[in-house]
Amino acid sequence: MAEVSSNLPGRIGILGGGSWATALAKIVLTRQPHLNWLLRTTNHIKEFTRLKHNPNYLTSVTFDTSRITFFTDSDVNDFFRACDTVILATPSPYIRYYLKRVRTSVIRPKLIINAIKGMVPEENILISDYLQEYKELRPGQIGVIAGPCHAEEIAKDRMSYLTVGCFDLGKAKVLSEELFSNDYVHCAVSRDVVGIEYAAVLKNIYAIAAGICHGMNKGDNFQSVLISNAIAEMSHFVGTVHLLNRDVTESVYLGDLLVTAYSSYSRNRTFGNMIGKGYSVRAAQMEMNMVAEGYYGAKCIHEINQRYQVTMPICDTVYEILYEGAPVEASITKLAALFK
Amino acid sequence: MAEVSSNLPGRIGILGGGSWATALAKIVLTRQPHLNWLLRTTNHIKEFTRLKHNPNYLTSVTFDTSRITFFTDSDVNDFFRACDTVILATPSPYIRYYLKRVRTSVIRPKLIINAIKGMVPEENILISDYLQEYKELRPGQIGVIAGPCHAEEIAKDRMSYLTVGCFDLGKAKVLSEELFSNDYVHCAVSRDVVGIEYAAVLKNIYAIAAGICHGMNKGDNFQSVLISNAIAEMSHFVGTVHLLNRDVTESVYLGDLLVTAYSSYSRNRTFGNMIGKGYSVRAAQMEMNMVAEGYYGAKCIHEINQRYQVTMPICDTVYEILYEGAPVEASITKLAALFK
Repeated sequence: MAEVSSNLPGRIGILGGGSWATALAKIVLTRQPHLNWLLRTTNHIKEFTRLKHNPNYLTSVTFDTSRITFFTDSDVNDFFRACDTVILATPSPYIRYYLKRVRTSVIRPKLIINAIKGMVPEENILISDYLQEYKELRPGQIGVIAGPCHAEEIAKDRMSYLTVGCFDLGKAKVLSEELFSNDYVHCAVSRDVVGIEYAAVLKNIYAIAAGICHGMNKGDNFQSVLISNAIAEMSHFVGTVHLLNRDVTESVYLGDLLVTAYSSYSRNRTFGNMIGKGYSVRAAQMEMNMVAEGYYGAKCIHEINQRYQVTMPICDTVYEILYEGAPVEASITKLAALFK
Repeated sequence: MAEVSSNLPGRIGILGGGSWATALAKIVLTRQPHLNWLLRTTNHIKEFTRLKHNPNYLTSVTFDTSRITFFTDSDVNDFFRACDTVILATPSPYIRYYLKRVRTSVIRPKLIINAIKGMVPEENILISDYLQEYKELRPGQIGVIAGPCHAEEIAKDRMSYLTVGCFDLGKAKVLSEELFSNDYVHCAVSRDVVGIEYAAVLKNIYAIAAGICHGMNKGDNFQSVLISNAIAEMSHFVGTVHLLNRDVTESVYLGDLLVTAYSSYSRNRTFGNMIGKGYSVRAAQMEMNMVAEGYYGAKCIHEINQRYQVTMPICDTVYEILYEGAPVEASITKLAALFK
């Protein structure tokens, strides 16, 4: 535990105003007296302060706003300066915008916990890699929080299980105890930062596949085989890109895949479902009000896998349907023939 | 492939008249010209012949009864004599009744494929063990067919995945090709007869647990963690009682657990759901028209595990709720604290 500084986790910040960010804010405020929270606009903050809840997401969760200091997009450097530990919780397409604007000298000494279930677009790398390559953070300054955890159920205080990963397990333990464990959240610890980040990206792609098959009315038998093959594919890919002794049946891998692929709350599954029912990709995107992370994830993983050449037919199929206009029926039939 | 006799699978029989037996009969008749089928009573057979479908289960599936020779309970020895390969597909509580009645000299030379997702009650042993211990079958004469496969979806020709297991893999391949593979069934092969049999018993117990938690409204996050812990528990138990290099993410293990634990067709989940909603065990059983295999499985596994002493909190919890009157709420709370 040598690396753990005595004031960990210090002053806490959350970057992001969506449902997952709001759920994390709720959790953190059960353990911490104060929170810095970056929302996008002054208007958003005004509405939040007036209503005592996020005007757009998890509106049933009320907050004591006297315990929150809000920041806007234009304050991003001030926001990081006001924090010792920052949880990144924007949708993945937006994170680059913030990380480019925050000065390296400002973010470098902070502890950054990635709660984003996606990668940095364009650069096509994990958030943890981006932080190291572009912002000069040491691995010891980076963590990840993930797990089978629909924000909507956190809103209802339903028992949920998260996992916080740090390269330094002692640090993960402190974060689990000081930030994330409470009456309705059980927070495990892990060293597998990279594996957890990749698993979180992959499960959204698999959830799109599950949605497509659901939309095509393929049935429960087929769905269960798809998920079994998906976890095997995940295990294979993550094992190739980051060798570590991990058990993919743990809830941060399998559980998160299950909750995303089987749950009606999942936006990725919903997006896939529309594709399976015959919507075009564009039409499905327009109909949805939220970003389906797996849409971006499919492209990122496809490009990364050019290097690793792991056999991953499910991700390939989703990529081909979403980006290359592959016909849905024929693609899924071809995929089904490969299932074990 | 030395053990595979040239006339495998020979004349085929199915023992059992429920939905799973009916689905198997439908599958087998896509590959074989003729089927011997043991139903319980003359009345049942008369109605079947008149209606051209099973009067009680999967009534949408019509059969060409000129290709079926029916037998009743009282013909059990004649039935076995008329077959070279017999698929056992009764609910587990009834199999002992038939196996006690069939003469050892009659059944001993047959190839027996176990399709029962349960154990022999009272003796508390796997079907494959019973056949060896009480009916003198050699291991090479025993197989198992399982997988994530709701009979109701076979009825609709929905793509499904089965696995046939034999100690002799060559025999499994012949059975897969000659009996179980068709346009809507993909049938894999395995050597893990014992593991597959145990997995089929365990998944029903886990489905009861899933149903209980669903009935208690524990939410999707919790459910996914329950299933993740269940597959780990299954892996641990099966790995202890039968050492073999197996991957529990394969569809015959994980897939079957998923389809049973997540599907609305599952009688085990439905049974658990009623318990979770506050029904007594007796009332839930009376309300249901089908046998919930997991009810018997929970007792069998509990007793077998007295010998192995594997840590299996989910099975223990289901056993305590079903057989020892343990309070549901407190039991699940205690269990939840152990989840990883």
